[in-house]
Amino acid sequence: MGGFKHLVVVKFKEDVEVEVILKGMEKLVSEVDAVKCFEWGQDIESPEMLRQGFTHAFLMTFEKKEDYTAFTTHPTHIAFSATFVAAIDKFVVLDFPSVVAKSPA
Amino acid sequence: MGGFKHLVVVKFKEDVEVEVILKGMEKLVSEVDAVKCFEWGQDIESPEMLRQGFTHAFLMTFEKKEDYTAFTTHPTHIAFSATFVAAIDKFVVLDFPSVVAKSPA
Repeated sequence: MGGFKHLVVVKFKEDVEVEVILKGMEKLVSEVDAVKCFEWGQDIESPEMLRQGFTHAFLMTFEKKEDYTAFTTHPTHIAFSATFVAAIDKFVVLDFPSVVAKSPA
Repeated sequence: MGGFKHLVVVKFKEDVEVEVILKGMEKLVSEVDAVKCFEWGQDIESPEMLRQGFTHAFLMTFEKKEDYTAFTTHPTHIAFSATFVAAIDKFVVLDFPSVVAKSPA
């Protein structure tokens, strides 16, 4: 929780092997120390009206914005980004300092 | 981290007082025990091409999906939702069991 977040919400192209993309992403975050936390999920149940066609969310946490900036220029990230962008039909990316308004007691 | 996530990405209408909405949301999550964690953020820097017009992300964490389902039918949530929906220009909602692929050592 907290820190600087890199949130990516996507809809993959229909012919994409999502498992392959996921493995590439897990390899990427495992190789870059600046990524402190990485979690993701797939929504396959919510009404289409809510999902707007999007299916996957990816959330990376960095200690501070500078770490995220360094990540974006990391060679492994740049290489993976090309693969990722080719696999997606549409996306939304938000990068922001996280405000923790409620946390586990 | 982990648990069941309720992710809401929005663009607010131009004449909306976002601070008022945020206060309402913080009140909502403080009143509903099922919400274990709530964090949010505003992206005011990323390229418009990445943000696609969206500005805010809200992320709630529940222990399990059943808790989220109970939250959606909570009277306080239903009342707040009407206010929230009236304030947004567009949105994406994803609800998913979170897969934690990397966590702090």
